[in-house]
Amino acid sequence: MFLSMHNWMRAEPIEVTIRRLAQCGYQSIEIEGEPSKYNTKEVRAMLKEYNLFCFGSVSLMFEGRDLIHADEAVRASSVQYIKNCVTMVEELEGREMTIVPSQVGKVAAMASEEEEWQWAVEGLKEIYAHSEQAGVVLGLEPLNRFETNFLNRHDQGLMLAEAVGPNCGVCLDAFHINIEEADLHQAILNTGDKLVAFHVADNNRMACGQGDYDWVRLVTTLKAAGYDSALTVEFVAPLDRTPANPYKNATAEAESELTPEQLKFIKDHGSGVLSDEFYTWLVQTSADTLRNAMEKVGVAPN
Amino acid sequence: MFLSMHNWMRAEPIEVTIRRLAQCGYQSIEIEGEPSKYNTKEVRAMLKEYNLFCFGSVSLMFEGRDLIHADEAVRASSVQYIKNCVTMVEELEGREMTIVPSQVGKVAAMASEEEEWQWAVEGLKEIYAHSEQAGVVLGLEPLNRFETNFLNRHDQGLMLAEAVGPNCGVCLDAFHINIEEADLHQAILNTGDKLVAFHVADNNRMACGQGDYDWVRLVTTLKAAGYDSALTVEFVAPLDRTPANPYKNATAEAESELTPEQLKFIKDHGSGVLSDEFYTWLVQTSADTLRNAMEKVGVAPN
Amino acid sequence: MFLSMHNWMRAEPIEVTIRRLAQCGYQSIEIEGEPSKYNTKEVRAMLKEYNLFCFGSVSLMFEGRDLIHADEAVRASSVQYIKNCVTMVEELEGREMTIVPSQVGKVAAMASEEEEWQWAVEGLKEIYAHSEQAGVVLGLEPLNRFETNFLNRHDQGLMLAEAVGPNCGVCLDAFHINIEEADLHQAILNTGDKLVAFHVADNNRMACGQGDYDWVRLVTTLKAAGYDSALTVEFVAPLDRTPANPYKNATAEAESELTPEQLKFIKDHGSGVLSDEFYTWLVQTSADTLRNAMEKVGVAPN
Amino acid sequence: MFLSMHNWMRAEPIEVTIRRLAQCGYQSIEIEGEPSKYNTKEVRAMLKEYNLFCFGSVSLMFEGRDLIHADEAVRASSVQYIKNCVTMVEELEGREMTIVPSQVGKVAAMASEEEEWQWAVEGLKEIYAHSEQAGVVLGLEPLNRFETNFLNRHDQGLMLAEAVGPNCGVCLDAFHINIEEADLHQAILNTGDKLVAFHVADNNRMACGQGDYDWVRLVTTLKAAGYDSALTVEFVAPLDRTPANPYKNATAEAESELTPEQLKFIKDHGSGVLSDEFYTWLVQTSADTLRNAMEKVGVAPN
Repeated sequence: MFLSMHNWMRAEPIEVTIRRLAQCGYQSIEIEGEPSKYNTKEVRAMLKEYNLFCFGSVSLMFEGRDLIHADEAVRASSVQYIKNCVTMVEELEGREMTIVPSQVGKVAAMASEEEEWQWAVEGLKEIYAHSEQAGVVLGLEPLNRFETNFLNRHDQGLMLAEAVGPNCGVCLDAFHINIEEADLHQAILNTGDKLVAFHVADNNRMACGQGDYDWVRLVTTLKAAGYDSALTVEFVAPLDRTPANPYKNATAEAESELTPEQLKFIKDHGSGVLSDEFYTWLVQTSADTLRNAMEKVGVAPN
Repeated sequence: MFLSMHNWMRAEPIEVTIRRLAQCGYQSIEIEGEPSKYNTKEVRAMLKEYNLFCFGSVSLMFEGRDLIHADEAVRASSVQYIKNCVTMVEELEGREMTIVPSQVGKVAAMASEEEEWQWAVEGLKEIYAHSEQAGVVLGLEPLNRFETNFLNRHDQGLMLAEAVGPNCGVCLDAFHINIEEADLHQAILNTGDKLVAFHVADNNRMACGQGDYDWVRLVTTLKAAGYDSALTVEFVAPLDRTPANPYKNATAEAESELTPEQLKFIKDHGSGVLSDEFYTWLVQTSADTLRNAMEKVGVAPN
Repeated sequence: MFLSMHNWMRAEPIEVTIRRLAQCGYQSIEIEGEPSKYNTKEVRAMLKEYNLFCFGSVSLMFEGRDLIHADEAVRASSVQYIKNCVTMVEELEGREMTIVPSQVGKVAAMASEEEEWQWAVEGLKEIYAHSEQAGVVLGLEPLNRFETNFLNRHDQGLMLAEAVGPNCGVCLDAFHINIEEADLHQAILNTGDKLVAFHVADNNRMACGQGDYDWVRLVTTLKAAGYDSALTVEFVAPLDRTPANPYKNATAEAESELTPEQLKFIKDHGSGVLSDEFYTWLVQTSADTLRNAMEKVGVAPN
Repeated sequence: MFLSMHNWMRAEPIEVTIRRLAQCGYQSIEIEGEPSKYNTKEVRAMLKEYNLFCFGSVSLMFEGRDLIHADEAVRASSVQYIKNCVTMVEELEGREMTIVPSQVGKVAAMASEEEEWQWAVEGLKEIYAHSEQAGVVLGLEPLNRFETNFLNRHDQGLMLAEAVGPNCGVCLDAFHINIEEADLHQAILNTGDKLVAFHVADNNRMACGQGDYDWVRLVTTLKAAGYDSALTVEFVAPLDRTPANPYKNATAEAESELTPEQLKFIKDHGSGVLSDEFYTWLVQTSADTLRNAMEKVGVAPN
């Protein structure tokens, strides 16, 4: 296993992100699904400079990105969007594409269950044909019920992956499975060799080590499930607007470079614009916690 | 301790609810905060007939109910709404009123942190003056970050309760604390004698016993914290819209008697209209699980 | 709850022991059952000087001390021995006497099950009559199977206590219940208000905090069981005779003041003569671990 | 992984044992280290008839069997004894020999630490030379402190194994590691690919499933450690001599075929002569518990 991290949680120049990851001891990045934003040649060079690699990417399902939208045009553009993400991963020499099938935050259905399922399978098959050629594996990610009403549990993910194609996998997330699975360790074991990506935050979506997860046990379960790939850090620190707030340095509105839709996406996750100081502390704490657990389980990278 | 249950999760005549609770071995009800809907004299008589009592009520913070709304008129009507709930509890010979301070589902602030806190304290103090006269204790309830950005953790709840008045308490919810607290057992211990109500569902918000909570351990912690009151069942079964759905009998659109805003409230929780058969099964399973745990800890009611 | 500690594990002048306990923040002592060894007036004065008190004592069942011995004379002298211990506790203004009914290390029966049980009840009743007058409560302690074949589990202890008299209690030990109980937390809850003493070491009988016990959870369970008395530290560090030994400073043969039978007793427990440095470290570590847990559960002494 | 079981805990014709194992769904046996007792040709035929195989054997260290005895003749005969066990394993087409280096129940040293270690290494090297030729792997087993003062923890076992030879391994036992290891899951992970055998009983040494072990978690840890071999059942039911005894059918003195030294060995383990009915129930319960866990972890044999 190795350390990876998302970058969608903070708007900043990609080089700032890459430098921080390198300093904190990460091996790789799971870059946000915004192909139009990145010059892949430049990013690849930066990663090499800092001795990192791109593990993959994750689809950012803002409004208007939805594989099961009632509007056929939206579905088509969403398929194209994810195919572009896959191409970005290929160009960054990555290997995995995490896919959230429906818009994040949409919890009301637009069509019948059968139609939604069919649209999801059709769209994903088209993406799958492209990703197979690109040498990128797909990981379908279930989210908690507040973020989607479509894919919430590993068994749903496995069934959808099976309908898409033999190499289609599933991505699980420590924060979500703690909310949605009857037994999160069993969910990981059941996913087994279909598990192609794993996102990590603590139970309260703070940095790994700041909640009640037993990280040695979790990494043990992952290893027993045959997983030997990225632990991709994805904390989303909830902002405390009360006098009880323990982290007075958490926010930094002035530092923001977010577009309005990015800001909305982050706020819908219950977070906001984090200061560089606070963010870096969470990045480092996560790395320290995970590296310690990987060493105890005997799966730390060389 | 004793068994209690909310009734906001299913629209049905109150007598149907009370009869089911009695049949499943509950001692009490935490009735939904809809004073205009209930004839308290009739409900009191029904409860007596079935040998149940009203433990209290919970505010249902639909749109337009918000103690920290930027519109003063909304704040004022919200205060009046909760005072009416308190009166309902008094008339039903209940003892507790659970208060969610802000609108459920609102995660964007309308004012500064200082203003929001001040409005919350002011509104709650007015409610507190009324509840003290009515002999009803208030319990401020933190929710998870997807349902509110105002009160998420026990320490915030304790600080707000302290600002309101010496008898103001806190209500915790098993589903929410598993998401928001760094250590949910410690959160219960820290709340201690300020804990005046406790809502229960399993980690996946299914019936108690259908997730991974260790219920004997949880009841042990509650007892050690000095809690000796209602365990109020509040499952919210997520609806599975995929072919993996294990509960084919879960939904029953036709049975619905919900108003549009009630239906929206339930759907925003990731659930829907549950069939009587499925709902009753969850009510019974919760009771069986909790009674077993209470007996093992030695706190079962006579 | 408060901190207490046994002193049978190290041979040294009692004042050395008392001074160390005071320095490490203990409130009390559970003095070894050797009435002939102590001048109670002097010990009482020493305890007062160091602001400690005597919680009670524990019977040391060397060969020749056995309430269920086949030889009536041995049974009689064993009864007298424990009565003398009770008197010592009374003179030291203590309140509890822990009783191990049979010789430690004896795992072969000398009589039928019925005879052994009858002898135990008879002997304990005689002791009980004396202890009731002395205002000292008895706690019958189950040990693990390697130390006795008579009393191994809490339910056996409860049954024997009930046969002895209404005020007779049970003493449990964290090390033993981890070996013998099907569910150690349930064993504590079941013992409930019959639990009059509790001995603590970690699962590996090292200092509290040096094994895998969750001490906050254990203290939570004790509180929920209604226990509000001594946590009596009783580590027995196993001596490591291999090159893997992590504690090179553990032993100190030269410091020994042990009688041959005391040394045998300690060696039968898998331990030996510990150095003052090593012993003090274990005493301090236990206190730190327990005080932290008591504070988190809210049961620390003022 | 697959199911295996010791047979030293009950004296009965080997065919009775083999038939019971087959009926209860076991795949293999870890036959007691009594080469003179078995006609390996006949036993091999019996095993084939019942579709079982011999996984290996375990040394039974009665008095007079001790690799670190002060008497050179005892050490020499003990080496020869274990070599004979290895030969028996080879003839039974087994692959593993579990070695307890010192007499079970001996907790007093006969020589200096350095001498004991040297004798152990010398004796084991001689056995190792033989076992390497026989194609049998050695597994050194740490026991709890009441059974030996020589080898108690995995790290001691690893150090001794390393001194013996590159293919020498370690055998761990669920009952012992719960008593002696600071973190039993970490002990298993640390042993890693040196783990060549694993003995199972519940924390109270009853059948797997009758104590508080989380078997799915334990098998998960074993798999993560790279272990893929026998789970060898080795319960030792403590006999309850009090009126609280929940198993009235446990004992059966009359059925015994034990030699006096075998009986002493079993009694020193806190057990006795178990009835066929009780014993079979424990054998079946262990198999059911382990098979369920292996299936959940995905390591059940075909």
